[in-house]
Amino acid sequence: MVVVMDMQATEAQIQSVIGRLSEMGFDIHRSTGVTRTVIGAIGDKTGVDTRDFEVLPGVHEVVRITEPYKLASRTFKEEDTVVEAKGIQIGGKQLALIAGPCAVESRDQLMTIAEQVKEAGAHGLRGGAFKPRTSPYSFQGLGEEGLKYLREAGERFGLFVVTEVMDRAQIALISEYADVLQVGARNMQNYTLLTELGKQPKPVLLKRGMAATVEDWLMSAEYIMAGGNHQVILCERGIRTFERYTRNTLDISAIPVVHKLSHLPIIADPSHGTGIREKVLPMARAAVAAGADGLMVEVHHDPNHAKSDGAQSLVPEQFREMVREIRIIVQALGREV
Amino acid sequence: MVVVMDMQATEAQIQSVIGRLSEMGFDIHRSTGVTRTVIGAIGDKTGVDTRDFEVLPGVHEVVRITEPYKLASRTFKEEDTVVEAKGIQIGGKQLALIAGPCAVESRDQLMTIAEQVKEAGAHGLRGGAFKPRTSPYSFQGLGEEGLKYLREAGERFGLFVVTEVMDRAQIALISEYADVLQVGARNMQNYTLLTELGKQPKPVLLKRGMAATVEDWLMSAEYIMAGGNHQVILCERGIRTFERYTRNTLDISAIPVVHKLSHLPIIADPSHGTGIREKVLPMARAAVAAGADGLMVEVHHDPNHAKSDGAQSLVPEQFREMVREIRIIVQALGREV
Amino acid sequence: MVVVMDMQATEAQIQSVIGRLSEMGFDIHRSTGVTRTVIGAIGDKTGVDTRDFEVLPGVHEVVRITEPYKLASRTFKEEDTVVEAKGIQIGGKQLALIAGPCAVESRDQLMTIAEQVKEAGAHGLRGGAFKPRTSPYSFQGLGEEGLKYLREAGERFGLFVVTEVMDRAQIALISEYADVLQVGARNMQNYTLLTELGKQPKPVLLKRGMAATVEDWLMSAEYIMAGGNHQVILCERGIRTFERYTRNTLDISAIPVVHKLSHLPIIADPSHGTGIREKVLPMARAAVAAGADGLMVEVHHDPNHAKSDGAQSLVPEQFREMVREIRIIVQALGREV
Amino acid sequence: MVVVMDMQATEAQIQSVIGRLSEMGFDIHRSTGVTRTVIGAIGDKTGVDTRDFEVLPGVHEVVRITEPYKLASRTFKEEDTVVEAKGIQIGGKQLALIAGPCAVESRDQLMTIAEQVKEAGAHGLRGGAFKPRTSPYSFQGLGEEGLKYLREAGERFGLFVVTEVMDRAQIALISEYADVLQVGARNMQNYTLLTELGKQPKPVLLKRGMAATVEDWLMSAEYIMAGGNHQVILCERGIRTFERYTRNTLDISAIPVVHKLSHLPIIADPSHGTGIREKVLPMARAAVAAGADGLMVEVHHDPNHAKSDGAQSLVPEQFREMVREIRIIVQALGREV
Repeated sequence: MVVVMDMQATEAQIQSVIGRLSEMGFDIHRSTGVTRTVIGAIGDKTGVDTRDFEVLPGVHEVVRITEPYKLASRTFKEEDTVVEAKGIQIGGKQLALIAGPCAVESRDQLMTIAEQVKEAGAHGLRGGAFKPRTSPYSFQGLGEEGLKYLREAGERFGLFVVTEVMDRAQIALISEYADVLQVGARNMQNYTLLTELGKQPKPVLLKRGMAATVEDWLMSAEYIMAGGNHQVILCERGIRTFERYTRNTLDISAIPVVHKLSHLPIIADPSHGTGIREKVLPMARAAVAAGADGLMVEVHHDPNHAKSDGAQSLVPEQFREMVREIRIIVQALGREV
Repeated sequence: MVVVMDMQATEAQIQSVIGRLSEMGFDIHRSTGVTRTVIGAIGDKTGVDTRDFEVLPGVHEVVRITEPYKLASRTFKEEDTVVEAKGIQIGGKQLALIAGPCAVESRDQLMTIAEQVKEAGAHGLRGGAFKPRTSPYSFQGLGEEGLKYLREAGERFGLFVVTEVMDRAQIALISEYADVLQVGARNMQNYTLLTELGKQPKPVLLKRGMAATVEDWLMSAEYIMAGGNHQVILCERGIRTFERYTRNTLDISAIPVVHKLSHLPIIADPSHGTGIREKVLPMARAAVAAGADGLMVEVHHDPNHAKSDGAQSLVPEQFREMVREIRIIVQALGREV
Repeated sequence: MVVVMDMQATEAQIQSVIGRLSEMGFDIHRSTGVTRTVIGAIGDKTGVDTRDFEVLPGVHEVVRITEPYKLASRTFKEEDTVVEAKGIQIGGKQLALIAGPCAVESRDQLMTIAEQVKEAGAHGLRGGAFKPRTSPYSFQGLGEEGLKYLREAGERFGLFVVTEVMDRAQIALISEYADVLQVGARNMQNYTLLTELGKQPKPVLLKRGMAATVEDWLMSAEYIMAGGNHQVILCERGIRTFERYTRNTLDISAIPVVHKLSHLPIIADPSHGTGIREKVLPMARAAVAAGADGLMVEVHHDPNHAKSDGAQSLVPEQFREMVREIRIIVQALGREV
Repeated sequence: MVVVMDMQATEAQIQSVIGRLSEMGFDIHRSTGVTRTVIGAIGDKTGVDTRDFEVLPGVHEVVRITEPYKLASRTFKEEDTVVEAKGIQIGGKQLALIAGPCAVESRDQLMTIAEQVKEAGAHGLRGGAFKPRTSPYSFQGLGEEGLKYLREAGERFGLFVVTEVMDRAQIALISEYADVLQVGARNMQNYTLLTELGKQPKPVLLKRGMAATVEDWLMSAEYIMAGGNHQVILCERGIRTFERYTRNTLDISAIPVVHKLSHLPIIADPSHGTGIREKVLPMARAAVAAGADGLMVEVHHDPNHAKSDGAQSLVPEQFREMVREIRIIVQALGREV
């Protein structure tokens, strides 16, 4: 932390700041310039609120130096983390492709889609059993019945299963059926849920919140990791901006930014990121070109009758085309799919 | 819903859209113009995703007409809802003032602050027992011990108690101690929590999420109301924008907007809305001038040693000054405090 | 500027950074901690791009200390600037009220409105002669004819005249007729225009750009002031956020923020800030309650037939009501109108 | 336009709305439902402000149907526009690569860079002679001297020249030296400049404003086209969001969105879009993968001593690597570079 004093700050004010920093265990480096005094406070103190110093008399500005996250930071672990789900590595040389319907609607629906995405090259199967819907009057998912279909489809077609957990009370149940537990964008800062997910062994796919900075997002990963579970996959799914033509603005630049700041793998979800079927393919290509470790896309064999998000679901033919195009692009990056 | 067809749409495409709308139970109004056909679909269908029609062949654009919320809408209930907590009315002629520390830190701390805010004119006492903190390494609250102090202080000084519930599993416990259950901004779309809160009788103070539109927010209120609990107080606490000088941007215009769209009371939280002590007072005045039904502010007798949010907490003298100034402003509006 | 080195930075890298800073004339304060070295660079160097140091090998982060603006900063001039237009002081104890139509449409229209706003208490008359319209097919203003009507109305009713200048080539012409030259939100970073306005003596009303931070805005004021013209009035008129119910989000908190950072007066424009007539009144009250030095509002005697922005224009009765309510609110702040 | 009436609207209110719409020349389609009346207004009326109807008594909501732009719309011109600059086609099968320094600093600097980018595969040379700088104290460009160097370098190395015009008074001068006139993000809604650019024959490269929706942007293109000049190249360069790790958020999804809504070519500027050298390469790949018609990147042979934007400039080796990687990616899309 660096505390910049006002030009008019008195020596007493400076001493008072130094006193409080020392109390908190920081090493102090005072630098007295012609116009201002700058106080460097060195020490490994997570959880300090810089604003507490900003309001002290004589203080002009306070700047945090180290990131507030530690376990999630590349400074503390240089090599890439590779998360494993049913034998598939996420974060390694190979891209991970996760596909499936927005919601599990029936056994037939799920088997049909799972078979087709597997043939097209998917490694994981997505599908919601408990659905967080904006309207209380919309379809809320099949619940445990949906989980059973997911597991059956995963086993039959050799796909790892990803599904959302909306509440800490659901973790035990969902863990019986799923290989990867997903935290949705709306729950990215549901800290009781994150804390519990840190205490169990399954990998967690953590979606970025609509208003979350990359730093906020890594802090949420830190919550899970602080509990002992380091198997976290980040998933960029679009942020909210003033542009409303697309449902969200898929922040492709977050991919290289996360790769620099953190060792955790990052995938992209162009379905939620755009909300429009015909934009999924170009944005999937873009995410991969920017270095994403994988993709999660919604696929439905009959999207016109899907119970949710049909408008952003690819049909299986489009998913096959996506895989074909991505295969060429990853060559440019020395990866494979 | 209004479906606007492409200029080149064929009659078959138009018929196909009309067919699907009829299937769903809408009354159809077709309007064939010189350049385009426009199809009006009238009917009370909440939970329809307009995007499902946007992707149909020949469709140019789809526009929703009615708001997706119903119970929260002023269209369905014209007169203002007045929520009652321990005899105090929120949403009526009198402004409701809720004050207290960010977190309950000790019995002494809470009693000291409660006494002072009561004397200054507060009606409710706020204080966190379970704290949602961005960092897993920060103080997380005293838990049930904190709840006990809150109830004791509330009874001793005649203040209703507001505290945050972070997870549906905490509802029963917190309900024993609190008069109003708060949903934090980060949990505004935690639908399992909202659903459970709809099934219990205590009033709910619902904070606006950082990236939530007013419509999203009212949809979250609808979740609670759909369960049977219509005692919802909305609380504007700042949205996330590109401006980062203040912690958030307090969206004062949301106050008159909510008053038009909904019958629910709305209060403002200028402490979180700005994140800076010296900005709390002007923004409290602004919120009240714009028509807020109350204020929730953080007050601490020793903010330099507060365990959280000290930088944005008023000292009791400032809170007294705030009440004094607000008293003059509400006169202009024919209200009182 | 504070340069924070990587934990692994070598001594050579540190020396290289120090070398470049010295070259640029900074005083260097080196602080070597257990884990990192921090280099303070003290000196009055505006126009340095901190990113130039961020990309140097071994550098972790660079933080600017002093604001990039100087003449606009309260650090360099503590007392409030009071701008004078036709004998009216803006930024002093009295609130300045500027009212008038969006566009000057005819001599009759302008005289009618000017008379009514004067009677209601306005000090200044606004009205566009050259209109920046989003569509090239919309009414673009009466041009010089409109300027003549403005001057006539201003003289007849004793109102100072504010009108927009869209291009540096218009400055000379508009200066003949107007008392205050307005820079619109879309031109806030039109640096050739700002530079020219700095070289002429009329006060400038500088609107905030839709995506401008307060710092960007003060930098644009600095452009004008650097040319020698210190008569700058800032005008908050709403920023663009994800919330689209209102046309823009009026950032009321910018008012106290500007008052802290700068000595320049700041007024608010609730008409453009909301875009909806019925929201103008509550937001006008809010702006004044937050400490605005004045208001600029659109008033039209027949808004249903206005050629632009009729939807956000007050009718004269509403303007009178606004003045009445504001008169009460400013008492709470020890000011008058 | 579709006018949705309130549920309680009276017949007189409905007739009044219909009357005003008829007056304006619209064809009226009235649809009376069980709960509401919906009025369709069909006709080609650009420049109508829907808010003018929203404020009428009895009106619930007004929805615009047709885009406000016409010449820029794909509805009015289906086939892609191909802009030509010095024999190079922008918007055709081949990607256009524009590279060069942020600012022209000297003859030597420009020749060195131009030679290297040409060898690496660039088609166009960028470089600022008049620089719009946030600070009035920063380097403002060499002016006409810079233009001369640009033209000389363009001729010597067979590159078309792109440079920014900041004001309509500069158009004539810059046209003597440049092949493409650039409008910067800060001037995207400088309508006097756009109008003048519509009256001259050189192609215009129109950057997206930081807070501009795609619709705003196409409206600015419409301004140029309405004057008769249809040679417009759009350039996505990042929008302002709450995420500040990158200088801006490059909105990659705008590329497929523009391709759907408009026939105009669109290129991307990953240098300004990210502001960080090491992020330029992944974002350049992403833009091309999403379908961009070209790239504009900043290249400097000695970025540590660049007078502006050195931190985001590639060194020539990095530019060569970029071209190599992009060559592979465009194959996936059936294009070439």
